[in-house]
Amino acid sequence: MRKSSVKDWFPVLHWARGYNRSALSSDLTAAAVVTLLLIPQSLAYALLAGLPAVTGLYASMLPLVVYALMGTSPVLAAGPAALRSIMSLAAVGAVATVGSADFIAASLLLALLVGGLLLLMGALRMGFIVGFLSAPVLSGFVTASGLLIAMSQWPHLLGVPLRGSNLWVFVQSLWQQAGQWHALTLGVGLATLLALWAARRWLKAVLLRLGLNPAVADLVAKAAPLLVIVIAIGLTAALDWAAQGLAVLGSVPGGFPPFTLGAVIGVAPATVQALLLPALLIAMLTFVEQISIAQAFAAKRRERVDGDAEMRAMGAANIAAGLSGGHAVGASFSRSAVLHEGGARTPAAGLLTAWLLGTTALFFTPWLHQLPLAVLAATILMALGSLLDFGSFARTWRYSRADFAAQALTFGVTLLVDLVSGLTVGLIASLTLHIWRSSRPHIAVLGNVPGTEHYRNVLRHEVVTQPHILGLRVDESLFFANARFLEDRVNAEVVARPQLRHLVLQCTAVNDIDASALESLQSINQRLQDVGVQLHLSEVKGPVMDRLQRSDFLQQLSGGVFLTHHQAVAALSAGD
Amino acid sequence: MRKSSVKDWFPVLHWARGYNRSALSSDLTAAAVVTLLLIPQSLAYALLAGLPAVTGLYASMLPLVVYALMGTSPVLAAGPAALRSIMSLAAVGAVATVGSADFIAASLLLALLVGGLLLLMGALRMGFIVGFLSAPVLSGFVTASGLLIAMSQWPHLLGVPLRGSNLWVFVQSLWQQAGQWHALTLGVGLATLLALWAARRWLKAVLLRLGLNPAVADLVAKAAPLLVIVIAIGLTAALDWAAQGLAVLGSVPGGFPPFTLGAVIGVAPATVQALLLPALLIAMLTFVEQISIAQAFAAKRRERVDGDAEMRAMGAANIAAGLSGGHAVGASFSRSAVLHEGGARTPAAGLLTAWLLGTTALFFTPWLHQLPLAVLAATILMALGSLLDFGSFARTWRYSRADFAAQALTFGVTLLVDLVSGLTVGLIASLTLHIWRSSRPHIAVLGNVPGTEHYRNVLRHEVVTQPHILGLRVDESLFFANARFLEDRVNAEVVARPQLRHLVLQCTAVNDIDASALESLQSINQRLQDVGVQLHLSEVKGPVMDRLQRSDFLQQLSGGVFLTHHQAVAALSAGD
Repeated sequence: MRKSSVKDWFPVLHWARGYNRSALSSDLTAAAVVTLLLIPQSLAYALLAGLPAVTGLYASMLPLVVYALMGTSPVLAAGPAALRSIMSLAAVGAVATVGSADFIAASLLLALLVGGLLLLMGALRMGFIVGFLSAPVLSGFVTASGLLIAMSQWPHLLGVPLRGSNLWVFVQSLWQQAGQWHALTLGVGLATLLALWAARRWLKAVLLRLGLNPAVADLVAKAAPLLVIVIAIGLTAALDWAAQGLAVLGSVPGGFPPFTLGAVIGVAPATVQALLLPALLIAMLTFVEQISIAQAFAAKRRERVDGDAEMRAMGAANIAAGLSGGHAVGASFSRSAVLHEGGARTPAAGLLTAWLLGTTALFFTPWLHQLPLAVLAATILMALGSLLDFGSFARTWRYSRADFAAQALTFGVTLLVDLVSGLTVGLIASLTLHIWRSSRPHIAVLGNVPGTEHYRNVLRHEVVTQPHILGLRVDESLFFANARFLEDRVNAEVVARPQLRHLVLQCTAVNDIDASALESLQSINQRLQDVGVQLHLSEVKGPVMDRLQRSDFLQQLSGGVFLTHHQAVAALSAGD
Repeated sequence: MRKSSVKDWFPVLHWARGYNRSALSSDLTAAAVVTLLLIPQSLAYALLAGLPAVTGLYASMLPLVVYALMGTSPVLAAGPAALRSIMSLAAVGAVATVGSADFIAASLLLALLVGGLLLLMGALRMGFIVGFLSAPVLSGFVTASGLLIAMSQWPHLLGVPLRGSNLWVFVQSLWQQAGQWHALTLGVGLATLLALWAARRWLKAVLLRLGLNPAVADLVAKAAPLLVIVIAIGLTAALDWAAQGLAVLGSVPGGFPPFTLGAVIGVAPATVQALLLPALLIAMLTFVEQISIAQAFAAKRRERVDGDAEMRAMGAANIAAGLSGGHAVGASFSRSAVLHEGGARTPAAGLLTAWLLGTTALFFTPWLHQLPLAVLAATILMALGSLLDFGSFARTWRYSRADFAAQALTFGVTLLVDLVSGLTVGLIASLTLHIWRSSRPHIAVLGNVPGTEHYRNVLRHEVVTQPHILGLRVDESLFFANARFLEDRVNAEVVARPQLRHLVLQCTAVNDIDASALESLQSINQRLQDVGVQLHLSEVKGPVMDRLQRSDFLQQLSGGVFLTHHQAVAALSAGD
């Protein structure tokens, strides 16, 4: 037992034995391409989280190693991602000033909290929590987040200090600073945007037409963001743009990640408490994203995903991030797609990515000094396409007005108030909607189909009923959200039928009766008895019956339990 | 249309026309008995809420009038109740010091907020919100509240200042003050408890044996708490106990309620915000209690209850309380039972109660000066029996461990942290439990019963399957909480069946597909298509089909939609 459980926690023990040169070659190729993409992204997402650029590199090393040891998906790329970075900024920005040592410590702490929660939920097999976030709420939230991320990059593009925690603040701040834009910064930013857009659109086709090998053309196209950065650094250094007011990254310490537990220990308990709700929301969102990405690629590869193992792996990766100077990490869709297309065969691809990135961090970080922030901002803006899904609003509106209401509410609150409120409101809206839908189960009055032993809804079929016997069929499991509706409906039927002496509940569609519904059944039984009506049950499923026998309901029941509805009606008709 | 809507809001317009001398006589008798009970209760519950005793009288006048005009139940007794008083104390105590003017203003505001929320939810027909609170969570919360109420009365019984916002605080405080108990106070308190207990147990029987008319004996027994109070006031005044340190009520201003909107307007916005969550919880709890009481008595009387009208009526009653110096009000089970037994026939009984109480308030309040607080504390303790339900824990444990966990958690957090946290945690636990239960719907693999057109679960029946066709039956509606489970299950089945070419989802048990589940179906369709498997649907219900037609899912669907599962299997077998 013990050994198998260790293997469950560390899937590396499954795949490492069969690892060979051919797998290494595939994994290394994929890792190399991902590293090209990861370098600019990791720097940009750290800045987005309000942190020094180097923390992005830190967040991409140890977490990748840990995920590779504990994760089950060969193509899932763990590390920094835009959505988590802006949520980290919003959550930590509420308790500390951006740029302060407290802010960095709180960001690390947030990663630890997210990691701890994911690890705990994974250990408790709580993968079902993804069920709390409905798809429309999620897309409303993610689209609004994408817009907030775009807003957060305007200061770097315009060269003015803007605030953008929500749409109001951003518009006010934009208005106040109008006319103070920095022309050189704006020019560099726009040029980068144009270059990235052109590269995405045409570079590969142009290279192919120039006669390049398709594989090489693809690689060059993928490396375009990195190439743009190299060119930008070169131009900035050569033309001394930094001296003309263009904001650059500044000195980035090289080398391996520091051990940062010390910084986290100093955080005030009040800060820990304030970060708990955001950490829970980020953890849920991280898992939802991760499982969606993992399932999408697993299906393509005819592989299975173990949700609990994935949760534990990402939890451990976040703890690794918090301990090695990085911010909260999650799964990146764009980099996972690259790993998949690049032919990654085992999670070792992640280990190799970490190694390649480590080498870069060790030797090349001094070169990043002259990297303009406007270039990184442009990189982020170009990556937002995958977050913005405006079409979803129209599709949801057509399909379900109630779902649309939840989606629009989430979108509005996220954009106009803040991220944490938006997701909280969305979660509450999903659940409220669900409770509302399930609070009114379909209940049919039954009548006998003449000449048969069948009973059908009186509203839809030509059936026969008797004034002193009422048959009701509840078309759903009974639980707390619909139990009172049943009480109300039974009461209404009894009021409308003065001659009634027997009520038979047909339970064919009842898969479960929870403790609240049991209490309602007891009330119904008691109240019916008070007015001289007996309550009977028919066609109760085995597991439901087993459970009822653990309560005293069956002893209290004024009537009987019948195998079939027909037996009930026959017995009760004969008795009179 | 307009006129009928006014009548919906004011049911008094229905029953007032037929009102006659006979109904008046019945209502007046019931009202008189309730007034006897209401006087001591209203004073005691005001003190419990941390307010001057007179606010209890205020909370019992205008709210009763308003409820009588807008409510539908003839026997529902609106007014002060223990549970709401302690919740009001807990919520308002968190934002203002007990005894200060701010505290009183915030208590009034809380009543207004509760009233506003109930009125809003009633107008929006949101009666389904009772569905959020499961029965075990509710009983766990109410039992813990009963214990907290008991703790809150110990200072009055012992004559020492104790704090009792939760169990820890109470035990600490009790320990610190041990040995400083005031003997006279304790003596008066215990004597009152004994007298009340004896009266409840034996008074009616003794009076009957003494040859009294049963109706009179019953009335005297019901008036016992009031008699005890009169005797206690007499003794305290005669023996000058107040001078010996026995705490008494002190001067209670007589006359009619003041108009208190002015006091509320001065409350700080931060306080309003802090009271919103408690107000929402109190509103939910008030409605749950009210609807349970109303339904219980309506069933006995073969009457119907209009949940939305009840919610609006109690909302307006709370607003009336807040504007006339009273605290939050709700339905009282004990007084409703008295109205029912007393023969109340219309909501006019409430109007008459208010009138009788108003007369009392106008003339007799000066006499209350010498009423010992220990006597009121004893009155409260005697009324707690209906709140404490320890048996429910054992019943729930036997019936469902998961429900028990939610109940125990709610009980523990309420008792050890505070009321608002307890109810919040309980609510979250109910919902989590429900999402967990519904996250794994029963999904059966189907096979053909040889020689028939029937398809059954392969695990339970002798059926025939084909390697390239898989039939799955989902035994529940598809929505956000179970949509991903279906994706996962389909993925697992596909991985296990390399020969698979067609997947047929039988939708007999699917009553609804929400937007999240639609998205999952689209993902499933897309992923299956990527690995060369077609997705088909069979036996889709009419309303579900109508809805699917409003999306582009049916155009994207790689397979077909079949009327019966057999048609699907026949067509797909023939095609190969």
